[in-house]
Amino acid sequence: MMGKRIHNFNAGPAALPFEVLEEIQSELLDYKGSGMSILEVSHRSKWFDDVINSAVERTRKLLNLGEDFEVLFIQGGASLQFCMIPMNLGLKGRPVNYVNTGTWSTKAIKEAEIQGKDVNVIASSEDKGFSYIPEDFAVDGNAAYLHFTSNNTIKGTQWSRFPDAGDVPLVSDMSSDILSRPLDAAPFGLIYAGAQKNIGPSGTAMVIIRKDMLDRTPDHLPTMLKYTTFAEKNSMFNTPACMAVYTIDLVLKWIDERIGGLQKMEAVNREKASMLYDFIDQSHFFRGTAEKESRSLMNVTFRLPNEALEKEFVAEALEEGLGGLKGHRSVGGCRASIYNATGLEAVRALMGFMAEFEKKRG
Amino acid sequence: MMGKRIHNFNAGPAALPFEVLEEIQSELLDYKGSGMSILEVSHRSKWFDDVINSAVERTRKLLNLGEDFEVLFIQGGASLQFCMIPMNLGLKGRPVNYVNTGTWSTKAIKEAEIQGKDVNVIASSEDKGFSYIPEDFAVDGNAAYLHFTSNNTIKGTQWSRFPDAGDVPLVSDMSSDILSRPLDAAPFGLIYAGAQKNIGPSGTAMVIIRKDMLDRTPDHLPTMLKYTTFAEKNSMFNTPACMAVYTIDLVLKWIDERIGGLQKMEAVNREKASMLYDFIDQSHFFRGTAEKESRSLMNVTFRLPNEALEKEFVAEALEEGLGGLKGHRSVGGCRASIYNATGLEAVRALMGFMAEFEKKRG
Repeated sequence: MMGKRIHNFNAGPAALPFEVLEEIQSELLDYKGSGMSILEVSHRSKWFDDVINSAVERTRKLLNLGEDFEVLFIQGGASLQFCMIPMNLGLKGRPVNYVNTGTWSTKAIKEAEIQGKDVNVIASSEDKGFSYIPEDFAVDGNAAYLHFTSNNTIKGTQWSRFPDAGDVPLVSDMSSDILSRPLDAAPFGLIYAGAQKNIGPSGTAMVIIRKDMLDRTPDHLPTMLKYTTFAEKNSMFNTPACMAVYTIDLVLKWIDERIGGLQKMEAVNREKASMLYDFIDQSHFFRGTAEKESRSLMNVTFRLPNEALEKEFVAEALEEGLGGLKGHRSVGGCRASIYNATGLEAVRALMGFMAEFEKKRG
Repeated sequence: MMGKRIHNFNAGPAALPFEVLEEIQSELLDYKGSGMSILEVSHRSKWFDDVINSAVERTRKLLNLGEDFEVLFIQGGASLQFCMIPMNLGLKGRPVNYVNTGTWSTKAIKEAEIQGKDVNVIASSEDKGFSYIPEDFAVDGNAAYLHFTSNNTIKGTQWSRFPDAGDVPLVSDMSSDILSRPLDAAPFGLIYAGAQKNIGPSGTAMVIIRKDMLDRTPDHLPTMLKYTTFAEKNSMFNTPACMAVYTIDLVLKWIDERIGGLQKMEAVNREKASMLYDFIDQSHFFRGTAEKESRSLMNVTFRLPNEALEKEFVAEALEEGLGGLKGHRSVGGCRASIYNATGLEAVRALMGFMAEFEKKRG
């Protein structure tokens, strides 16, 4: 049935747990005795109702969310959220605060500006090519929210502690590190994530919204751009991305039952990242690009002595079954994305290959 | 590997061709030697590039589209299109025309009104409970576009000929009959369809837009709500719903190579619908609800002598492996959705069951 699987270091869409893929495959022609594929069952059926309710409950359990939070599934990825957030959570006469840590923050800021919001970028790491996470900045106590990108896939940086914004609700794009570690959701008004990195395939964003934020949705918005539309109908005002929600539910089950929850998931993720960063730090051939204290546990970015060697490295790695190691096209270099589903054995295989490559070409 | 498959008469998500499901299953762990599942491959990879280009080309071929049309994949279903259309295609100082043939048209009209457009509903079949398609109406020559719903899933009506609007571009929601029959796209400015009925699973809409319509997109719109964003980037400004596009491509291949194109697809669809309507018309027990000349080839709506019998009919049918025969919750009664992938054998099985049920209870 299967050929040779590779170790998948893609930045997203990215690796899924093999057990999840096997489960999808095994029930693809007949979903739980329904006589239909999960691709065919009605979203108004008890089968899909069970799927979406399970995905919501597993998210609640893993993130320890109280009843004051809703878990929603909205199509359009994080990119649609960039505009929905200022549309829904902006408040008349009050600014919105953003921290700029790279490409994705910059896009989020642009969409708030298009909406005509009073956008204050209160901190930025652009001065050093977005190679670090800003530490000292003041949040405007009058701001409607403070937005930041919790992990930056392109530059390989990550917030290890979240900013303290007092009573100003935090809003965060967690596309690339959601459910990779435990989280205290209390200070957050909204957390969003395109699913295709840590928790599923492409096709839906997960949106976790604190219920008091729903009071902010203006009446005049298009129906499909209001968070209230999704909150009132358990994400089924219209047909959701059923296959994506189903796969997410299986990934959450895997995190909960196979890994043992988010503390254990974080321990594995820390171990993978430490191994790889330690290897890079002792090497005179490979060089990390993010500042040490801002390093991402999810996306390990590094350079080789020159671009020609980087190209050979990526190509030869693929021949050895190590895929997706090319850096983002906007920055070049190399990147190993090591999300939840990329296991220790993949990182070990990568380090083995790196050592060998350095020995040959270093 | 599989249990008992049912005959699936759901209105959407709906049946997919069995060969398509088998192909998905067979390559789910290793997509074409990539060593990754299609759920895991990067949308920036040659594998997915081939998938989306193939889906676009097959659509072009089947619908005989010229180079003046773009084929796009946009998340959010037809419901998001309801607002994107007036946002993008409305013209300052000019009205937009709509024909109202039921629930979905009504929703499209509502979203144009929310946008503050000058909405003229130039015809409606609401006077007879949306049981027919209006014939005599005048289109405002100054209108930015004329919108209509080509097939109405809830009431079981369908436009057999499209309205003549002169130079006013037609815009049509074809969610429930796209690629069920050949089409002359020339008078259309935009055609859109949630994929989950005739061409794939839920999770993406197909949008076919005439290139001159792209000049209308206002600059100030949010990036993800502009058709130009999708047209300029081959639907990959951000990560698309990869699994949905992949499945659509396989369904289009099935229409093209197994069925033999849209003329043959229409012939099969006509045969299925004729058989079923003929059976209903000769019966004194079952009664069709749509006016004969407006009947849908896709959704056959019918009633039994009373609601208790309808409930028994739907329940007993499911026991016999005939699923999804309940009418839409807003109208009650029964409905057999017989989209492309629901074959002649399914309709024959349904008719056999109906005859037997009538004999027992009639």
